[in-house]
Amino acid sequence: MTAIRCGPKMPGQTRNIRLLIQFDGTGFCGWQMQASDRTVQGVLAEALNRLTGQPVRLYSSSRTDAGVHAVGMVVNFKLDTTLPLVAFHFGLNSLLPRDLQVVMADEAPDNFNARFSARGKTYVYRIQPGHTRLPLEASRAWHVRGSLDVEAMQRAAAMMLGRHDFNAFRSAQCDSDNPVRTVDQLTVEQGADGIVTITIRARAFLRNMVRIIAGTLVEIGRGRKNPEWVIELLESGDRTKAGMTAPPQGLFLVKVHYPEDISQPA
Amino acid sequence: MTAIRCGPKMPGQTRNIRLLIQFDGTGFCGWQMQASDRTVQGVLAEALNRLTGQPVRLYSSSRTDAGVHAVGMVVNFKLDTTLPLVAFHFGLNSLLPRDLQVVMADEAPDNFNARFSARGKTYVYRIQPGHTRLPLEASRAWHVRGSLDVEAMQRAAAMMLGRHDFNAFRSAQCDSDNPVRTVDQLTVEQGADGIVTITIRARAFLRNMVRIIAGTLVEIGRGRKNPEWVIELLESGDRTKAGMTAPPQGLFLVKVHYPEDISQPA
Repeated sequence: MTAIRCGPKMPGQTRNIRLLIQFDGTGFCGWQMQASDRTVQGVLAEALNRLTGQPVRLYSSSRTDAGVHAVGMVVNFKLDTTLPLVAFHFGLNSLLPRDLQVVMADEAPDNFNARFSARGKTYVYRIQPGHTRLPLEASRAWHVRGSLDVEAMQRAAAMMLGRHDFNAFRSAQCDSDNPVRTVDQLTVEQGADGIVTITIRARAFLRNMVRIIAGTLVEIGRGRKNPEWVIELLESGDRTKAGMTAPPQGLFLVKVHYPEDISQPA
Repeated sequence: MTAIRCGPKMPGQTRNIRLLIQFDGTGFCGWQMQASDRTVQGVLAEALNRLTGQPVRLYSSSRTDAGVHAVGMVVNFKLDTTLPLVAFHFGLNSLLPRDLQVVMADEAPDNFNARFSARGKTYVYRIQPGHTRLPLEASRAWHVRGSLDVEAMQRAAAMMLGRHDFNAFRSAQCDSDNPVRTVDQLTVEQGADGIVTITIRARAFLRNMVRIIAGTLVEIGRGRKNPEWVIELLESGDRTKAGMTAPPQGLFLVKVHYPEDISQPA
């Protein structure tokens, strides 16, 4: 390993520090810093400022919406500091609230950027079918009345795999120039506890894409539409025809993929 | 089915209504009604009072401590009312907060009592080992630094099965005359996510018995004690020698067992 990658640098040299963070999104108004609301970026930047005495500009792999959770989000920041890495893990955790913690801190290469270096992301969307919204799932699943035809959802999911124009599956606020995305994995499973889990991996996503796909698959699971409906939607490119945007509390950013495995320190 | 068991009765006749409830214990100071604190019994009794216009005396299968969760707790109450059962399920749920909901409501036999009719209870205790307390587990598992020797915990658990004097495994506040209990199931498993789950079933439990067993098994899992230590503890009957009382947020009342299956309406 080179000194650039691993060593604490000398004063005056800028380090690129990378954090793997987890948060329960229930108490956050999403990632992005806002003047008055509690956000992940705001709370993290404030704790880093207390730790280092410097203002810190954070780069994130994703800008999650309010209520969305992260099992493993990646952020990085550049800083001239001689603090050891342990300060950015356990030291920072002692300044952070229980619903936002650092899972790993390491020294990234100078050119690493949590957003632009990412090669893909995996999300999970959880659905709790049944007549009652279960309290232990209320903040981490979408409660859907009745039962779901998981097999129909699986057939529809298979038809969305690969490279498509996902214009029908993005929010009106999405500002991407190109609505073409490649879905590398899209599976639907039901656990012994009845929870239906949608797992989706892609190089990149459009705004609200996972939640609109979840809302569309639930329409099919409820039997209101056939699995083949997704082909029609992909061809139409018409957002107004697809399912609703599923609520945020069912969505989990599970993993951000980079050329190197960063779940363990470099 | 007889009218006593199933039928809505005529005015003037007292019905025995049984509810299966679920709650996230994080926001409750336990089951038992208190003057000022928010409790499960207090919130449920108030909602029932609003629904029926009558004061309702609740009987519960268990008196859980603050922070303890219930996947399936059973309660019953006697009432002279002609309200349909659906009012005690969906009607009541609309008056209850998101962290406490009714999963099933039915008409119980006159002699049914949620506490005294129970033939056993199953609890789950969840432990999250690792260097960081994960935000998504913080309110539903005990965070234990480092790793756990699950095999050693399993060997100790096997030695606690059956009928023993559990005096070393009860709180000083336990007021039971007889410390002998029979443990019918006691298993320890580690999931793919790293969470260690202790499942325990018994006819009846002493106060804090599950949490002290969990605290003791963790001492063994950490390697501070051998599995055979539990035999010594059972023989000594000395609470001061056993492990700590594990914190409440890892404990879930999963199921109350009755001669009949009450997960579905009678």
